[in-house]
Amino acid sequence: MSALLEQLIDALRVLPGVGQKSAQRMAYHLLERQRDGGRRLSEALEAAMSRIGNCGRCRDFSETPVCPVCASASRDAQVLCVVETPADRLAIEQATDFRGLYFVLHGRLSPLDGIGPRELGLDGLGTRLAEGEVRELIVATNPTVEGEATAHYLAQLARQHGVRPSRPAHGLPLGGELEYVDRGTLSHAFGSRSDITG
Amino acid sequence: MSALLEQLIDALRVLPGVGQKSAQRMAYHLLERQRDGGRRLSEALEAAMSRIGNCGRCRDFSETPVCPVCASASRDAQVLCVVETPADRLAIEQATDFRGLYFVLHGRLSPLDGIGPRELGLDGLGTRLAEGEVRELIVATNPTVEGEATAHYLAQLARQHGVRPSRPAHGLPLGGELEYVDRGTLSHAFGSRSDITG
Ligand SMILES: [Zn+2]
Ligand SMILES: [Zn+2]
Repeated sequence: MSALLEQLIDALRVLPGVGQKSAQRMAYHLLERQRDGGRRLSEALEAAMSRIGNCGRCRDFSETPVCPVCASASRDAQVLCVVETPADRLAIEQATDFRGLYFVLHGRLSPLDGIGPRELGLDGLGTRLAEGEVRELIVATNPTVEGEATAHYLAQLARQHGVRPSRPAHGLPLGGELEYVDRGTLSHAFGSRSDITG
Repeated sequence: MSALLEQLIDALRVLPGVGQKSAQRMAYHLLERQRDGGRRLSEALEAAMSRIGNCGRCRDFSETPVCPVCASASRDAQVLCVVETPADRLAIEQATDFRGLYFVLHGRLSPLDGIGPRELGLDGLGTRLAEGEVRELIVATNPTVEGEATAHYLAQLARQHGVRPSRPAHGLPLGGELEYVDRGTLSHAFGSRSDITG
């Protein structure tokens, strides 16, 4: 087989869920029918990998120092929603009419994997809560064991700064990933969120 | 969402079987954990799309005017195996001990789609059979209606040039794609191929 083809098949396996057989099928498909699409994908990958960094405010992916959502004057800076991943943020943005701001953890507390508050940027979040503008912290971590532990930590952090912690209403499927919840459920859960007390 | 991220998600959908949701997941995965892998994929795509053409002998994908298989002195030029796709050729090469040469149609006869002998390079195949070196033409098209019609045409073409047409033994699952047959079945079918008579 052509060395370049072999390299392409190998490189495609970096994609999640793509094994040797799918990678072969993808490579042949592009060569046979989608050369322009393959070139566009090459350019989009290069641009994205090189030029997408993180927003200095919310830590979401951004190609500018501060992302458009954080920079927007029309968002409510008094309500801050914490999510585990950029995909969770996107799901909430697409499913609900939430108009506050976000904070992206890029993970969840997981001491065994060496992921503590610092790795999740929680020092920066503390500083932000200390600024006094945020009134409510919506903790939208996933309903998993680690997600719940993270939620507990975030609620305490909020209270330390006189900020009211809340979380979306129960209704999210247990053990499921927020990113895959249907829009209706997610929107409902968001609308009927409750304070975290105790 | 970042415009570059949106472009990446859109570009990923050129891959077969990848919809909006999978494309999002792939983009986030690369940005979060595989930037180097994403860059390697970008480079491999660019190189493959630009520099892989077709072998002038067998029509398979090749980055050189004649592919290594066609150029090899150790292959038996008296036996030529015709397949529909490069993936079929690869499957045969990996599963069997076939040491002859190949001819890749990049399709099958399909008059309604405007795919006739010329589109499949059969004028070139005829010229090659006329050269006199080929003794046997193994017709390894898929066991579909169009594949069978193509096999019939190829068998006639072979006989016109005094070449013996044969095909792999039955045993390939009916209606299935050759590319997905398990190696054992494919190897057995190849070993007990029969002449095409009549
Ligand atoms: Zn931001
Ligand atoms: Zn060749």
